[in-house]
Amino acid sequence: MVANPERRALLADAGLRVLSSTGARGLTHRAVDREAGLPEGTAGNYFRNRDELLGALGERIFERLAPDPARVEQLAEREPGVELATDYIRYIVERLTAQPDLTRALFELRLEGSRRPELGKLLRATLTSGFRLDGEFNAQAGLPGGAFEIAMLHYAIDGLLFDLLTTSIDAGFDIDEVVSTLVRRLLEPG
Amino acid sequence: MVANPERRALLADAGLRVLSSTGARGLTHRAVDREAGLPEGTAGNYFRNRDELLGALGERIFERLAPDPARVEQLAEREPGVELATDYIRYIVERLTAQPDLTRALFELRLEGSRRPELGKLLRATLTSGFRLDGEFNAQAGLPGGAFEIAMLHYAIDGLLFDLLTTSIDAGFDIDEVVSTLVRRLLEPG
Repeated sequence: MVANPERRALLADAGLRVLSSTGARGLTHRAVDREAGLPEGTAGNYFRNRDELLGALGERIFERLAPDPARVEQLAEREPGVELATDYIRYIVERLTAQPDLTRALFELRLEGSRRPELGKLLRATLTSGFRLDGEFNAQAGLPGGAFEIAMLHYAIDGLLFDLLTTSIDAGFDIDEVVSTLVRRLLEPG
Repeated sequence: MVANPERRALLADAGLRVLSSTGARGLTHRAVDREAGLPEGTAGNYFRNRDELLGALGERIFERLAPDPARVEQLAEREPGVELATDYIRYIVERLTAQPDLTRALFELRLEGSRRPELGKLLRATLTSGFRLDGEFNAQAGLPGGAFEIAMLHYAIDGLLFDLLTTSIDAGFDIDEVVSTLVRRLLEPG
């Protein structure tokens, strides 16, 4: 079979829609074919088993959640400091809440990764390298905080996104105020 | 049918084991009967449909994650302050990581709640009242931080637990140091 990256992406996007509407529960190769409007067996040609299918969805999520280079360039021109760090984090929250299905799918896959060692290994490699790159970027850009601070902020923003995009504790505070306070207190305390 | 709270709890515990090993995907009334070693149809007598089953699992998680009254009493005897607040949070992290299947099941249910309005409503009511009670407790105990700080800390600890119990970013820091720094910086900044 000739590899067709566009069709692969189209199938992965269909898989993400299935994952979002039914959870991991309804995600089968057949459901992906149906959602993509393609003949039965197509998804099976691209992803040989469930681990490959789930892994492909993971990769596709990171592709689709990637920042717009123009926005990043604009940010990169500014003076480093806690204000700029806040705007970087605001932009992450903006992107991830604007695509709630993708962000929820990532949470689903991370949970599924704790049950499926193959998927877990693949996702963990991506997440770990993302975390390391965040640290390098932060240092090069002269932004406040080291790896320890970035880890704490990562947990806090993940927990906030989980609350915003799944069943909420309904704390009722302004999200932007939560985000900017988290950044200030965690990156530049005292 | 005579209601039997012990059998109901036994079925819910079986459901939580199914949810943990297969995800929401494998959770059916039939799988619950099988896991509990009870005749087919038993779970159906207690939980009439999927929403009732999922709701019962949610209730059972909160029952099983509840603190040990003796530990809480010990803590309540101490001087209020950031050290005591840290020990309360440490005890939450200790409980939730000691029962990883339950905590993962709660994440699963919160995700499922974003797709199933009935379940979402039920879970949200429990989470919201839990958050309010945390705030009242904190104020009565004279601990640092108000509702805003408690919300931020809640997000951060949720994100940390999600990382510890699912697919991790592998930041590699000492968990207790992460927890105590989060509490200090978020509850008592500057």
